[in-house]
Amino acid sequence: MVAMSKKAFEESAEDRLIARFFKPLATHPGALGLCDDAAFIAPPEGHDLVLKTDAIVGGVHFLADDPPDSVARKALRVNLSDIAAKGAKPLGFLLALAIPAEIGDDWLEKFSQGLRADAEEFSCPLFGGDTDRTPGPVTIAIFALGLVPHGKMVRRAGAKAGDIVAVTGTIGDAVLGLRLSREPKLAARWKLAAGDAEHLLSRYRIPQPRLGAAEALRAQASAAMDVSDGLAGDLAKLCRVSGVSAEIEAARVPLSAGAKAALAAEPQLFESMLTGGDDYEIVCTMPPEKFEDFRRAAGVAVTDIGRVVAGEGEARFLDRNGQAMTFARASFSHF
Amino acid sequence: MVAMSKKAFEESAEDRLIARFFKPLATHPGALGLCDDAAFIAPPEGHDLVLKTDAIVGGVHFLADDPPDSVARKALRVNLSDIAAKGAKPLGFLLALAIPAEIGDDWLEKFSQGLRADAEEFSCPLFGGDTDRTPGPVTIAIFALGLVPHGKMVRRAGAKAGDIVAVTGTIGDAVLGLRLSREPKLAARWKLAAGDAEHLLSRYRIPQPRLGAAEALRAQASAAMDVSDGLAGDLAKLCRVSGVSAEIEAARVPLSAGAKAALAAEPQLFESMLTGGDDYEIVCTMPPEKFEDFRRAAGVAVTDIGRVVAGEGEARFLDRNGQAMTFARASFSHF
Repeated sequence: MVAMSKKAFEESAEDRLIARFFKPLATHPGALGLCDDAAFIAPPEGHDLVLKTDAIVGGVHFLADDPPDSVARKALRVNLSDIAAKGAKPLGFLLALAIPAEIGDDWLEKFSQGLRADAEEFSCPLFGGDTDRTPGPVTIAIFALGLVPHGKMVRRAGAKAGDIVAVTGTIGDAVLGLRLSREPKLAARWKLAAGDAEHLLSRYRIPQPRLGAAEALRAQASAAMDVSDGLAGDLAKLCRVSGVSAEIEAARVPLSAGAKAALAAEPQLFESMLTGGDDYEIVCTMPPEKFEDFRRAAGVAVTDIGRVVAGEGEARFLDRNGQAMTFARASFSHF
Repeated sequence: MVAMSKKAFEESAEDRLIARFFKPLATHPGALGLCDDAAFIAPPEGHDLVLKTDAIVGGVHFLADDPPDSVARKALRVNLSDIAAKGAKPLGFLLALAIPAEIGDDWLEKFSQGLRADAEEFSCPLFGGDTDRTPGPVTIAIFALGLVPHGKMVRRAGAKAGDIVAVTGTIGDAVLGLRLSREPKLAARWKLAAGDAEHLLSRYRIPQPRLGAAEALRAQASAAMDVSDGLAGDLAKLCRVSGVSAEIEAARVPLSAGAKAALAAEPQLFESMLTGGDDYEIVCTMPPEKFEDFRRAAGVAVTDIGRVVAGEGEARFLDRNGQAMTFARASFSHF
């Protein structure tokens, strides 16, 4: 495109950057080695494509001094988390990367290594990309494609009164990890055991997309979504589009050892753990008789945390006395 | 995701923003009214998907005071231009939009109206999106999906010695339009006729994706790409991956009336017109005997500007004396 600045750019430097850092990720023949304007793919018959985009912005979703490889992995994984929640298998991704002038080859080298490791781990090759300069922070938009058998994408809408509400993994780690990354001395105040601080930090930096649960979700779940903006608010969204409400026993929400320690030291952290987001776990609903099969097949710890009830889109979290908890805000929103 | 700032955000404001401004563009049933984590689509049998992403950044690819509707249309059209060059038909798009705090509803209203007008004009509905705050400039990443009959995507690689080099529309308007937008008094210096300045400006602000030529490209072209980073550099890229060179008669490069006037007033503008980019025309190659059929079917003016020759990836522009022109840089690159 036309340059706004008169700065002389070296010819083809952008092409060389792409060839050096990103071509190794473009392993699908339809990516044409990133040497064309676009990629192509023949979708397998009998399948639907699942389409998702999520972007992360420096200073908003990650910290400027976060390791570049973990930034890359987070950017891809927040998208794969949605692919998993929809019961799909990753097919590939595209990358739109805007970087400020101070980002050099060293950062890009580590960024592309992290991205490549995940592309390989999740069998999710790069199909194409765009690199641009920005006067703002590093901005990474990923567009992920997934595959599901035709008609089988798991929706948010579909939860029925009487269904179990279940959640994978543990909730609240990432919000604690973010606090720790800014204030490392919290580890002492929270009396974290060795390894717990590192675990909470890694939960913030590198989400674990629950792709192993995708097939079980397709088989058993009536509705599902990934928990990215806080369990309370995300479950409320699921309830709203399903035309139901949910009652959650807050004490049953699964917590990691580090999160339990932090909560014992500062009980008021519970609200932010339920509403802060970045969990990248899956919340889903299913008839009670299907839960055991789901639990066995999910490939990750799964916890029954409550029930779907008739209602109009509320997610009520009940304390040990059966009283509904109130939150200042149920989920994170940038707006 | 987890908020980095402690600023209190209104619950669900992001959802309301999406519902208000972007849901009207999500007309495909698989978009689920933007009320799910992802969209799905059943690709028609016998077709390949064409995948493309291109982003535009405020202050880099557009000016902060450019009309929001034209910014939106440019963001979509730079992607549709690639879809057209690959011989494909638009299927839909996803949007990752990062906006600074000073962007309000008025800007978003106009932005979404422009995007909606183009989504309708090009039968290219919105399948999903992500909106984020950024401390940087407005950043718009679009992921476009196109469809071609299986195996028929037109590549960059494929040009053969002896082929004609052809280009759609006119070249160099956008780079002149950008200069005019910054220095309106150039219109007088260039002795532009009434309407010419407006035409050049609109060529910079609102590209015309040559989707009407897609079918003819599939039928006739041996190679094609869109001209986004300058005709000289883009043609050289096409030549490199095709393993050929090209000889272009510079005097045959098609120019608009305004561009001719500007060039008469300032002959030294020619280099930037051939290298500056943002043309969003299509440069393609084909055997000479196919050119007439292509010209008739392309739905846009098409000009034969030169020949493919044996060589190693050079695009030589010859002046009226048959001498090769030299350029300070052949194409625009951000890096």
